[in-house]
Amino acid sequence: MRQHAESIESRLAALEDAEAIRNLIAFYGPLADSGQADAVAMLWEPDGIYAIAGIGEAKGRKAIADLITGPQHQSLMNAGCAHLLGPVAVSLSGTDAEAWGHSVVVRQDGGGFGIARASANHWVLRRSATGWRVVRRDNAVLDGDPSAFQLFSGAVFPLPRK
Amino acid sequence: MRQHAESIESRLAALEDAEAIRNLIAFYGPLADSGQADAVAMLWEPDGIYAIAGIGEAKGRKAIADLITGPQHQSLMNAGCAHLLGPVAVSLSGTDAEAWGHSVVVRQDGGGFGIARASANHWVLRRSATGWRVVRRDNAVLDGDPSAFQLFSGAVFPLPRK
Amino acid sequence: MRQHAESIESRLAALEDAEAIRNLIAFYGPLADSGQADAVAMLWEPDGIYAIAGIGEAKGRKAIADLITGPQHQSLMNAGCAHLLGPVAVSLSGTDAEAWGHSVVVRQDGGGFGIARASANHWVLRRSATGWRVVRRDNAVLDGDPSAFQLFSGAVFPLPRK
Repeated sequence: MRQHAESIESRLAALEDAEAIRNLIAFYGPLADSGQADAVAMLWEPDGIYAIAGIGEAKGRKAIADLITGPQHQSLMNAGCAHLLGPVAVSLSGTDAEAWGHSVVVRQDGGGFGIARASANHWVLRRSATGWRVVRRDNAVLDGDPSAFQLFSGAVFPLPRK
Repeated sequence: MRQHAESIESRLAALEDAEAIRNLIAFYGPLADSGQADAVAMLWEPDGIYAIAGIGEAKGRKAIADLITGPQHQSLMNAGCAHLLGPVAVSLSGTDAEAWGHSVVVRQDGGGFGIARASANHWVLRRSATGWRVVRRDNAVLDGDPSAFQLFSGAVFPLPRK
Repeated sequence: MRQHAESIESRLAALEDAEAIRNLIAFYGPLADSGQADAVAMLWEPDGIYAIAGIGEAKGRKAIADLITGPQHQSLMNAGCAHLLGPVAVSLSGTDAEAWGHSVVVRQDGGGFGIARASANHWVLRRSATGWRVVRRDNAVLDGDPSAFQLFSGAVFPLPRK
């Protein structure tokens, strides 16, 4: 049997943290694609940032909600679209965490569906009194430009547990 | 350190529930795309429902298995297809749960692959003596019609734990 | 309340195993798509295998890293691509595990993105002193050929816990 230096409490808390982070991020797509702007914004910290390389950044929940209510996102929703995220790779460090994963914007276009955008995402997360929230999400389109590679460059596979 | 009103037992059980639900849903794609009709049906409760907006609903394991053995699914399998699901957002409430996520049907068509369908999914799940199963899966194509937005409308990001 | 024959320790360990496996596999895409060849290789056991039906197999970390530094992968990276994996269905058995899931290669092509490949994946994993690693990943394109169905054929939905 494996020996654990960590207590039951700390092992449970680490699992709860990982589960909460995966769940937090999994809410993004369904909330965004149904236009729930305030609920999307609540995934972030009050002063959280959603930065899209080459486009700009939204800072704070009001600005993030505005991305959802804005004409570009509404136009996508009306045409038909899925903000499909892949599973995230998570690295925990106390009340801080990072996660890395893909997002793909699937869009209805003419009679069928196509892919509007495939991106790299780097998530910085923090646990405060109200639970895990996004501090910063950086997104860059995977078009061969180093900015997207850079977002994935910090992905470090966790060391094995002792 | 965080204070927990919940017992170790209840915290472990909640994590096991979330893991079981994520795993249950993750089996759908591999089982469906390899034509394992009975195994797909076993993911549902005996009287479970798989409802596809605008098309119809299958009720009960026999009817759900028939979707897999039916000509439309078999034709997709022979052409080459992946029923790719995204990660699900999960909300637990005792022996009941809900989950929300995307599904994308990737289909080989001519020389390459295309996207036949991108949908919203709302899963209702229940834990009985035999474990977690699907009570009802609703699927609606994300084509701008409100029926798909409606499936995601109940997605409620979990309150932080105390 | 459910009765558990298993100890707290064994239940915690099973959850940690599932979390570690999901996380391990979730690192593949971000590491591969940013060209981190050695880090990709470290997801496998030292003598691990990555076999692609109809193409060949890479055995050992050096050979797996070579897939990432090789001209085909580098060309994909430069054109713009996402190796998007779906969530995996996991089956644990002590220090061994299997997992099943889709992978989709999204590639920039001309002005937009398309899907180069949609595949079935069967992962065999093992926990050694350094943690969970991939023993073997088999990948086969979902083009109607039985080889891909075969990779998913072993997917067995876990029995309910007692």
